Amino acid sequence: MQGTQNLNALEELVRQSVYRQLGLDKSTAATAPNKLLVNISARHCHLTQEAVEILFGEGHQLTPKKWLYQDGQYAAEEAVTLIGPRSRIISNLRILGPCRDINQVEIAYTDARALGFDVPVRQSGDIEGTPGCMLMGPKGYFKMDKGVIRAAIHVHMSPEDAAHYGVKDKDFMQLKVHGECGLTFDKVFVRVNPDFKLEVHLDTDEGNACGLGENTVCELKKIK
Amino acid sequence: MQGTQNLNALEELVRQSVYRQLGLDKSTAATAPNKLLVNISARHCHLTQEAVEILFGEGHQLTPKKWLYQDGQYAAEEAVTLIGPRSRIISNLRILGPCRDINQVEIAYTDARALGFDVPVRQSGDIEGTPGCMLMGPKGYFKMDKGVIRAAIHVHMSPEDAAHYGVKDKDFMQLKVHGECGLTFDKVFVRVNPDFKLEVHLDTDEGNACGLGENTVCELKKIK
Repeated sequence: MQGTQNLNALEELVRQSVYRQLGLDKSTAATAPNKLLVNISARHCHLTQEAVEILFGEGHQLTPKKWLYQDGQYAAEEAVTLIGPRSRIISNLRILGPCRDINQVEIAYTDARALGFDVPVRQSGDIEGTPGCMLMGPKGYFKMDKGVIRAAIHVHMSPEDAAHYGVKDKDFMQLKVHGECGLTFDKVFVRVNPDFKLEVHLDTDEGNACGLGENTVCELKKIK
Repeated sequence: MQGTQNLNALEELVRQSVYRQLGLDKSTAATAPNKLLVNISARHCHLTQEAVEILFGEGHQLTPKKWLYQDGQYAAEEAVTLIGPRSRIISNLRILGPCRDINQVEIAYTDARALGFDVPVRQSGDIEGTPGCMLMGPKGYFKMDKGVIRAAIHVHMSPEDAAHYGVKDKDFMQLKVHGECGLTFDKVFVRVNPDFKLEVHLDTDEGNACGLGENTVCELKKIK
Protein backbone atom coordinates (compact mmCIF):
# COMPACT_ATOMS: atom_id res chain seq x y z
CA MET A 1 0.00 0.00 0.00
CA GLN A 2 2.77 2.43 0.91
CA GLY A 3 4.43 1.68 -2.43
CA THR A 4 1.20 2.25 -4.29
CA GLN A 5 0.67 5.58 -2.55
CA ASN A 6 4.18 6.68 -3.45
CA LEU A 7 3.56 5.69 -7.07
CA ASN A 8 0.28 7.61 -7.13
CA ALA A 9 2.02 10.68 -5.71
CA LEU A 10 4.81 10.35 -8.25
CA GLU A 11 2.29 9.94 -11.07
CA GLU A 12 0.50 13.10 -9.89
CA LEU A 13 3.81 15.04 -9.83
CA VAL A 14 4.65 13.90 -13.35
CA ARG A 15 1.17 14.77 -14.55
CA GLN A 16 1.38 18.25 -13.04
CA SER A 17 4.76 18.80 -14.69
CA VAL A 18 3.47 17.68 -18.08
CA TYR A 19 0.40 19.88 -17.70
CA ARG A 20 2.55 22.88 -16.81
CA GLN A 21 4.79 22.31 -19.84
CA LEU A 22 1.81 22.04 -22.16
CA GLY A 23 0.19 25.09 -20.62
CA LEU A 24 -2.97 23.13 -19.82
CA ASP A 25 -5.80 24.48 -17.78
CA LYS A 26 -5.43 22.75 -14.42
CA SER A 27 -8.80 23.95 -13.25
CA THR A 28 -10.71 21.52 -15.47
CA ALA A 29 -8.42 18.57 -16.02
CA ALA A 30 -6.15 18.20 -13.02
CA THR A 31 -8.91 18.75 -10.48
CA ALA A 32 -11.37 16.37 -12.16
CA PRO A 33 -12.91 13.76 -9.85
CA ASN A 34 -11.92 10.95 -12.20
CA LYS A 35 -9.00 10.47 -14.54
CA LEU A 36 -9.92 10.74 -18.22
CA LEU A 37 -9.38 7.62 -20.30
CA VAL A 38 -9.44 7.80 -24.09
CA ASN A 39 -9.68 4.41 -25.73
CA ILE A 40 -9.87 3.15 -29.29
CA SER A 41 -12.71 0.80 -30.15
CA ALA A 42 -11.67 -1.42 -33.02
CA ARG A 43 -14.49 -2.61 -35.28
CA HIS A 44 -16.89 -4.91 -33.47
CA CYS A 45 -20.52 -5.95 -33.20
CA HIS A 46 -23.25 -6.22 -30.59
CA LEU A 47 -25.69 -9.09 -31.05
CA THR A 48 -28.94 -10.38 -29.64
CA GLN A 49 -28.97 -13.80 -27.96
CA GLU A 50 -31.09 -15.00 -30.90
CA ALA A 51 -28.39 -13.97 -33.40
CA VAL A 52 -25.67 -15.61 -31.28
CA GLU A 53 -27.58 -18.89 -31.33
CA ILE A 54 -28.10 -18.77 -35.10
CA LEU A 55 -24.38 -18.12 -35.62
CA PHE A 56 -22.92 -20.39 -32.91
CA GLY A 57 -25.63 -22.97 -32.24
CA GLU A 58 -28.69 -23.40 -30.04
CA GLY A 59 -28.21 -22.40 -26.43
CA HIS A 60 -24.76 -20.92 -27.07
CA GLN A 61 -23.62 -18.32 -24.53
CA LEU A 62 -20.88 -15.74 -25.20
CA THR A 63 -17.64 -16.32 -23.31
CA PRO A 64 -15.86 -13.25 -21.89
CA LYS A 65 -12.29 -13.03 -23.18
CA LYS A 66 -11.29 -9.58 -21.96
CA TRP A 67 -13.19 -7.27 -19.61
CA LEU A 68 -13.54 -3.71 -20.87
CA TYR A 69 -13.25 -0.53 -18.82
CA GLN A 70 -17.02 -0.02 -18.55
CA ASP A 71 -18.33 -2.38 -15.85
CA GLY A 72 -19.86 -5.61 -17.12
CA GLN A 73 -18.82 -5.09 -20.76
CA TYR A 74 -16.44 -7.55 -22.40
CA ALA A 75 -14.84 -8.61 -25.65
CA ALA A 76 -16.04 -12.16 -26.26
CA GLU A 77 -14.02 -15.14 -27.36
CA GLU A 78 -16.47 -15.37 -30.24
CA ALA A 79 -15.95 -13.52 -33.51
CA VAL A 80 -17.84 -13.58 -36.79
CA THR A 81 -17.12 -12.94 -40.45
CA LEU A 82 -18.77 -9.84 -41.90
CA ILE A 83 -19.79 -10.11 -45.55
CA GLY A 84 -20.30 -6.76 -47.24
CA PRO A 85 -22.36 -5.73 -50.26
CA ARG A 86 -19.68 -6.61 -52.81
CA SER A 87 -18.97 -9.98 -51.16
CA ARG A 88 -15.85 -8.53 -49.62
CA ILE A 89 -15.31 -9.72 -46.08
CA ILE A 90 -13.86 -8.77 -42.73
CA SER A 91 -12.91 -11.84 -40.76
CA ASN A 92 -12.62 -11.98 -36.98
CA LEU A 93 -15.11 -9.23 -36.28
CA ARG A 94 -15.16 -9.32 -32.48
CA ILE A 95 -18.45 -9.63 -30.60
CA LEU A 96 -18.81 -7.42 -27.51
CA GLY A 97 -20.94 -8.84 -24.71
CA PRO A 98 -23.25 -9.13 -22.99
CA CYS A 99 -25.99 -9.59 -25.60
CA ARG A 100 -28.22 -6.60 -26.33
CA ASP A 101 -31.70 -6.20 -27.73
CA ILE A 102 -30.48 -5.02 -31.14
CA ASN A 103 -27.86 -6.14 -33.63
CA GLN A 104 -25.31 -3.48 -34.49
CA VAL A 105 -21.99 -3.55 -36.37
CA GLU A 106 -19.54 -0.70 -35.73
CA ILE A 107 -16.82 -0.14 -38.32
CA ALA A 108 -14.52 2.73 -39.24
CA TYR A 109 -14.78 4.56 -42.58
CA THR A 110 -11.54 2.88 -43.67
CA ASP A 111 -13.25 -0.50 -43.16
CA ALA A 112 -16.42 0.74 -44.85
CA ARG A 113 -14.54 1.92 -47.92
CA ALA A 114 -12.60 -1.33 -48.17
CA LEU A 115 -15.88 -3.26 -48.06
CA GLY A 116 -17.77 -0.94 -50.39
CA PHE A 117 -20.23 0.16 -47.70
CA ASP A 118 -21.73 3.61 -47.46
CA VAL A 119 -22.31 3.76 -43.70
CA PRO A 120 -23.67 6.72 -41.76
CA VAL A 121 -22.29 8.17 -38.54
CA ARG A 122 -24.69 7.34 -35.73
CA GLN A 123 -24.92 7.17 -31.98
CA SER A 124 -25.07 3.62 -30.69
CA GLY A 125 -28.62 2.24 -30.91
CA ASP A 126 -29.78 4.72 -33.56
CA ILE A 127 -29.88 2.30 -36.48
CA GLU A 128 -33.07 3.14 -38.41
CA GLY A 129 -32.31 3.50 -42.12
CA THR A 130 -28.76 2.16 -41.87
CA PRO A 131 -27.44 -0.55 -44.21
CA GLY A 132 -27.48 -4.21 -43.28
CA CYS A 133 -25.00 -7.01 -43.90
CA MET A 134 -24.54 -10.74 -43.64
CA LEU A 135 -22.72 -12.32 -40.69
CA MET A 136 -21.21 -15.78 -40.85
CA GLY A 137 -20.49 -17.95 -37.81
CA PRO A 138 -19.39 -21.55 -37.38
CA LYS A 139 -22.98 -22.79 -37.25
CA GLY A 140 -24.83 -20.49 -39.60
CA TYR A 141 -25.49 -17.21 -41.34
CA PHE A 142 -27.36 -14.29 -39.86
CA LYS A 143 -28.78 -11.57 -42.08
CA MET A 144 -28.95 -8.10 -40.57
CA ASP A 145 -31.40 -5.89 -42.45
CA LYS A 146 -29.93 -2.79 -40.80
CA GLY A 147 -27.43 -1.85 -38.10
CA VAL A 148 -24.08 -1.17 -39.79
CA ILE A 149 -22.80 2.19 -38.54
CA ARG A 150 -19.76 4.24 -37.87
CA ALA A 151 -20.16 5.06 -34.19
CA ALA A 152 -20.00 8.78 -33.48
CA ILE A 153 -17.27 9.81 -31.05
CA HIS A 154 -18.70 9.89 -27.53
CA VAL A 155 -17.77 10.11 -23.88
CA HIS A 156 -19.21 7.97 -21.09
CA MET A 157 -19.45 9.74 -17.76
CA SER A 158 -21.13 9.62 -14.36
CA PRO A 159 -23.36 12.43 -13.03
CA GLU A 160 -20.39 13.43 -10.84
CA ASP A 161 -18.18 13.87 -13.95
CA ALA A 162 -20.97 15.75 -15.73
CA ALA A 163 -21.28 18.16 -12.81
CA HIS A 164 -17.52 18.73 -12.82
CA TYR A 165 -17.40 19.56 -16.52
CA GLY A 166 -20.67 21.49 -16.44
CA VAL A 167 -22.40 19.37 -19.07
CA LYS A 168 -25.47 17.17 -19.29
CA ASP A 169 -26.55 14.03 -21.14
CA LYS A 170 -26.62 14.49 -24.96
CA ASP A 171 -24.51 17.66 -24.88
CA PHE A 172 -21.43 17.91 -27.09
CA MET A 173 -17.92 18.55 -25.77
CA GLN A 174 -14.48 18.99 -27.33
CA LEU A 175 -11.60 16.57 -26.89
CA LYS A 176 -8.16 18.10 -27.43
CA VAL A 177 -5.45 15.54 -28.15
CA HIS A 178 -1.87 16.75 -27.73
CA GLY A 179 1.24 15.42 -29.45
CA GLU A 180 2.83 15.64 -32.87
CA CYS A 181 -0.46 14.72 -34.58
CA GLY A 182 -2.45 16.93 -32.21
CA LEU A 183 -6.05 17.70 -33.05
CA THR A 184 -9.31 18.65 -31.41
CA PHE A 185 -12.47 16.63 -31.89
CA ASP A 186 -15.20 19.26 -31.91
CA LYS A 187 -18.28 17.07 -31.47
CA VAL A 188 -17.90 14.53 -28.68
CA PHE A 189 -21.36 13.32 -27.67
CA VAL A 190 -21.93 13.14 -23.91
CA ARG A 191 -23.60 10.08 -22.37
CA VAL A 192 -24.31 10.34 -18.66
CA ASN A 193 -25.26 7.33 -16.56
CA PRO A 194 -24.56 6.47 -12.90
CA ASP A 195 -23.00 3.20 -14.09
CA PHE A 196 -20.55 4.86 -16.50
CA LYS A 197 -16.85 5.43 -15.88
CA LEU A 198 -15.22 8.44 -17.53
CA GLU A 199 -14.06 7.23 -20.94
CA VAL A 200 -13.98 8.58 -24.49
CA HIS A 201 -14.38 6.08 -27.32
CA LEU A 202 -12.65 6.78 -30.63
CA ASP A 203 -12.76 4.52 -33.65
CA THR A 204 -9.53 3.35 -35.31
CA ASP A 205 -9.53 6.15 -37.92
CA GLU A 206 -9.85 8.77 -35.20
CA GLY A 207 -7.28 7.08 -32.96
CA ASN A 208 -4.81 6.70 -35.81
CA ALA A 209 -5.37 10.23 -37.12
CA CYS A 210 -4.29 11.70 -33.78
CA GLY A 211 -1.64 9.03 -33.13
CA LEU A 212 -3.21 8.13 -29.79
CA GLY A 213 -0.80 6.20 -27.58
CA GLU A 214 -0.59 5.24 -23.93
CA ASN A 215 1.07 8.49 -22.92
CA THR A 216 -0.89 10.87 -25.12
CA VAL A 217 -2.23 13.79 -23.11
CA CYS A 218 -5.94 14.47 -23.74
CA GLU A 219 -8.24 17.19 -22.43
CA LEU A 220 -12.01 17.14 -22.35
CA LYS A 221 -13.45 20.64 -22.68
CA LYS A 222 -16.87 22.17 -22.34
CA ILE A 223 -17.84 24.03 -25.52
CA LYS A 224 -18.10 27.72 -24.71
CA MET B 1 -17.08 31.84 -70.97
CA GLN B 2 -20.29 33.63 -69.99
CA GLY B 3 -21.64 30.37 -68.60
CA THR B 4 -18.47 29.80 -66.62
CA GLN B 5 -18.66 33.28 -65.15
CA ASN B 6 -22.25 32.73 -64.12
CA LEU B 7 -21.32 29.46 -62.49
CA ASN B 8 -18.45 31.10 -60.62
CA ALA B 9 -20.74 33.86 -59.39
CA LEU B 10 -23.32 31.29 -58.30
CA GLU B 11 -20.65 29.27 -56.52
CA GLU B 12 -19.51 32.40 -54.69
CA LEU B 13 -23.09 33.17 -53.60
CA VAL B 14 -23.58 29.63 -52.30
CA ARG B 15 -20.25 29.79 -50.50
CA GLN B 16 -21.14 33.10 -48.84
CA SER B 17 -24.48 31.66 -47.73
CA VAL B 18 -22.86 28.53 -46.26
CA TYR B 19 -20.25 30.67 -44.51
CA ARG B 20 -22.93 32.88 -42.99
CA GLN B 21 -24.91 29.90 -41.75
CA LEU B 22 -21.83 28.39 -40.14
CA GLY B 23 -20.84 31.71 -38.64
CA LEU B 24 -17.42 31.55 -40.28
CA ASP B 25 -14.95 34.38 -40.29
CA LYS B 26 -15.25 35.87 -43.75
CA SER B 27 -12.19 38.04 -43.25
CA THR B 28 -9.80 35.09 -43.58
CA ALA B 29 -11.58 32.50 -45.66
CA ALA B 30 -13.98 34.21 -48.04
CA THR B 31 -11.54 36.96 -48.99
CA ALA B 32 -8.61 34.60 -49.61
CA PRO B 33 -6.86 35.03 -52.96
CA ASN B 34 -7.22 31.33 -53.74
CA LYS B 35 -9.85 28.76 -52.88
CA LEU B 36 -8.72 26.24 -50.28
CA LEU B 37 -8.62 22.63 -51.42
CA VAL B 38 -8.30 19.82 -48.88
CA ASN B 39 -7.43 16.51 -50.47
CA ILE B 40 -6.79 13.01 -49.19
CA SER B 41 -3.55 11.35 -50.26
CA ALA B 42 -4.02 7.60 -50.25
CA ARG B 43 -0.89 5.55 -49.56
CA HIS B 44 1.71 5.93 -52.28
CA CYS B 45 5.42 6.07 -52.98
CA HIS B 46 7.95 8.36 -54.62
CA LEU B 47 10.83 6.63 -56.36
CA THR B 48 14.13 7.43 -58.02
CA GLN B 49 14.56 6.64 -61.71
CA GLU B 50 17.05 3.95 -60.64
CA ALA B 51 14.43 2.22 -58.46
CA VAL B 52 11.85 2.45 -61.26
CA GLU B 53 14.26 0.69 -63.64
CA ILE B 54 15.02 -2.08 -61.13
CA LEU B 55 11.29 -2.66 -60.58
CA PHE B 56 10.01 -2.17 -64.15
CA GLY B 57 13.03 -2.80 -66.36
CA GLU B 58 15.95 -0.89 -67.84
CA GLY B 59 15.04 2.45 -69.38
CA HIS B 60 11.46 2.31 -68.09
CA GLN B 61 9.75 5.68 -67.76
CA LEU B 62 6.70 6.30 -65.56
CA THR B 63 3.45 6.91 -67.44
CA PRO B 64 1.13 9.62 -66.09
CA LYS B 65 -2.33 8.20 -65.37
CA LYS B 66 -3.93 11.11 -63.54
CA TRP B 67 -2.59 14.63 -63.06
CA LEU B 68 -2.70 15.89 -59.50
CA TYR B 69 -3.64 19.38 -58.35
CA GLN B 70 -0.04 20.49 -57.86
CA ASP B 71 1.41 21.34 -61.28
CA GLY B 72 3.54 18.61 -62.86
CA GLN B 73 2.68 15.96 -60.26
CA TYR B 74 0.85 12.82 -61.30
CA ALA B 75 -0.32 9.40 -60.21
CA ALA B 76 1.46 6.94 -62.48
CA GLU B 77 0.01 3.94 -64.26
CA GLU B 78 2.68 1.96 -62.43
CA ALA B 79 2.13 0.48 -58.98
CA VAL B 80 4.25 -1.80 -56.83
CA THR B 81 3.71 -4.35 -54.09
CA LEU B 82 4.96 -3.32 -50.65
CA ILE B 83 6.28 -6.14 -48.50
CA GLY B 84 6.37 -5.33 -44.80
CA PRO B 85 8.48 -6.69 -41.93
CA ARG B 86 6.19 -9.65 -41.23
CA SER B 87 5.87 -10.54 -44.92
CA ARG B 88 2.46 -8.95 -45.00
CA ILE B 89 1.84 -7.02 -48.19
CA ILE B 90 0.01 -4.07 -49.67
CA SER B 91 -0.59 -4.57 -53.36
CA ASN B 92 -1.14 -1.79 -55.87
CA LEU B 93 0.84 0.84 -54.00
CA ARG B 94 0.61 3.73 -56.45
CA ILE B 95 3.76 5.52 -57.61
CA LEU B 96 3.55 9.30 -57.82
CA GLY B 97 5.66 10.95 -60.48
CA PRO B 98 7.85 12.45 -61.64
CA CYS B 99 10.80 10.59 -60.15
CA ARG B 100 12.58 12.20 -57.20
CA ASP B 101 16.06 11.92 -55.76
CA ILE B 102 14.92 9.79 -52.79
CA ASN B 103 12.70 6.78 -52.32
CA GLN B 104 9.84 7.33 -49.91
CA VAL B 105 6.73 5.32 -49.02
CA GLU B 106 3.83 7.17 -47.39
CA ILE B 107 1.25 5.09 -45.55
CA ALA B 108 -1.39 5.79 -42.91
CA TYR B 109 -1.18 4.35 -39.38
CA THR B 110 -4.02 1.97 -40.24
CA ASP B 111 -1.85 0.57 -43.05
CA ALA B 112 1.22 0.51 -40.79
CA ARG B 113 -0.58 -1.45 -38.08
CA ALA B 114 -1.97 -3.93 -40.60
CA LEU B 115 1.56 -4.51 -41.90
CA GLY B 116 3.23 -4.60 -38.49
CA PHE B 117 5.28 -1.45 -39.15
CA ASP B 118 6.20 1.09 -36.52
CA VAL B 119 6.46 4.17 -38.72
CA PRO B 120 7.18 7.71 -37.56
CA VAL B 121 5.36 10.88 -38.56
CA ARG B 122 7.64 12.93 -40.78
CA GLN B 123 7.60 15.76 -43.25
CA SER B 124 8.23 14.59 -46.80
CA GLY B 125 11.95 14.14 -47.46
CA ASP B 126 12.91 13.79 -43.79
CA ILE B 127 13.59 10.05 -43.82
CA GLU B 128 16.75 9.58 -41.72
CA GLY B 129 16.23 6.81 -39.16
CA THR B 130 12.92 5.64 -40.63
CA PRO B 131 12.21 1.96 -41.35
CA GLY B 132 12.77 0.43 -44.76
CA CYS B 133 10.80 -2.14 -46.72
CA MET B 134 10.91 -4.30 -49.82
CA LEU B 135 9.14 -3.29 -53.02
CA MET B 136 8.20 -5.77 -55.74
CA GLY B 137 7.60 -4.85 -59.37
CA PRO B 138 7.05 -6.90 -62.52
CA LYS B 139 10.78 -6.98 -63.31
CA GLY B 140 12.42 -7.13 -59.89
CA TYR B 141 12.68 -6.36 -56.21
CA PHE B 142 13.96 -3.12 -54.72
CA LYS B 143 15.09 -2.95 -51.11
CA MET B 144 14.61 0.38 -49.37
CA ASP B 145 16.81 0.68 -46.30
CA LYS B 146 14.75 3.61 -45.05
CA GLY B 147 11.95 5.88 -46.19
CA VAL B 148 8.67 4.47 -44.87
CA ILE B 149 6.80 7.28 -43.15
CA ARG B 150 3.43 8.59 -42.21
CA ALA B 151 3.42 12.00 -43.86
CA ALA B 152 2.63 14.80 -41.43
CA ILE B 153 -0.39 16.88 -42.36
CA HIS B 154 0.74 19.88 -44.40
CA VAL B 155 -0.48 22.69 -46.61
CA HIS B 156 1.06 23.77 -49.91
CA MET B 157 0.78 27.47 -50.62
CA SER B 158 2.20 30.28 -52.72
CA PRO B 159 3.87 33.36 -51.20
CA GLU B 160 0.64 35.22 -52.01
CA ASP B 161 -1.39 32.77 -49.90
CA ALA B 162 1.20 32.96 -47.10
CA ALA B 163 0.92 36.76 -47.06
CA HIS B 164 -2.87 36.52 -46.90
CA TYR B 165 -2.85 34.14 -43.94
CA GLY B 166 0.06 35.90 -42.25
CA VAL B 167 2.28 32.81 -42.09
CA LYS B 168 5.67 31.77 -43.44
CA ASP B 169 7.34 28.58 -44.61
CA LYS B 170 7.62 25.93 -41.84
CA ASP B 171 5.03 27.60 -39.60
CA PHE B 172 2.13 25.56 -38.27
CA MET B 173 -1.52 26.43 -38.86
CA GLN B 174 -4.85 24.96 -37.82
CA LEU B 175 -7.36 23.37 -40.18
CA LYS B 176 -10.93 23.34 -38.93
CA VAL B 177 -13.15 20.79 -40.66
CA HIS B 178 -16.91 21.30 -40.26
CA GLY B 179 -19.63 18.68 -40.44
CA GLU B 180 -20.97 15.89 -38.26
CA CYS B 181 -17.46 14.52 -37.62
CA GLY B 182 -16.02 18.02 -37.26
CA LEU B 183 -12.53 18.39 -35.86
CA THR B 184 -9.60 20.78 -35.91
CA PHE B 185 -6.13 19.67 -36.94
CA ASP B 186 -3.85 21.69 -34.67
CA LYS B 187 -0.51 21.17 -36.42
CA VAL B 188 -0.70 21.71 -40.16
CA PHE B 189 2.82 22.29 -41.47
CA VAL B 190 3.13 25.19 -43.92
CA ARG B 191 5.16 24.76 -47.12
CA VAL B 192 5.56 27.91 -49.20
CA ASN B 193 6.78 27.83 -52.80
CA PRO B 194 5.94 30.02 -55.81
CA ASP B 195 5.02 26.85 -57.71
CA PHE B 196 2.53 25.63 -55.10
CA LYS B 197 -1.24 25.87 -55.33
CA LEU B 198 -3.20 26.19 -52.07
CA GLU B 199 -3.91 22.63 -50.97
CA VAL B 200 -3.94 20.70 -47.69
CA HIS B 201 -2.94 17.04 -47.82
CA LEU B 202 -4.51 14.63 -45.34
CA ASP B 203 -3.83 10.92 -45.18
CA THR B 204 -6.69 8.41 -45.29
CA ASP B 205 -6.94 8.11 -41.49
CA GLU B 206 -7.23 11.86 -41.14
CA GLY B 207 -9.66 12.16 -44.04
CA ASN B 208 -11.83 9.34 -42.75
CA ALA B 209 -11.73 10.58 -39.14
CA CYS B 210 -13.28 13.90 -40.18
CA GLY B 211 -15.49 12.36 -42.86
CA LEU B 212 -14.07 14.64 -45.54
CA GLY B 213 -16.31 14.79 -48.59
CA GLU B 214 -16.61 16.98 -51.66
CA ASN B 215 -18.84 19.50 -49.92
CA THR B 216 -17.13 19.57 -46.53
CA VAL B 217 -16.40 23.13 -45.43
CA CYS B 218 -12.83 23.64 -44.20
CA GLU B 219 -11.08 26.68 -42.75
CA LEU B 220 -7.36 27.29 -42.56
CA LYS B 221 -6.47 29.40 -39.53
CA LYS B 222 -3.38 31.12 -38.28
CA ILE B 223 -2.48 29.96 -34.78
CA LYS B 224 -2.87 32.89 -32.41
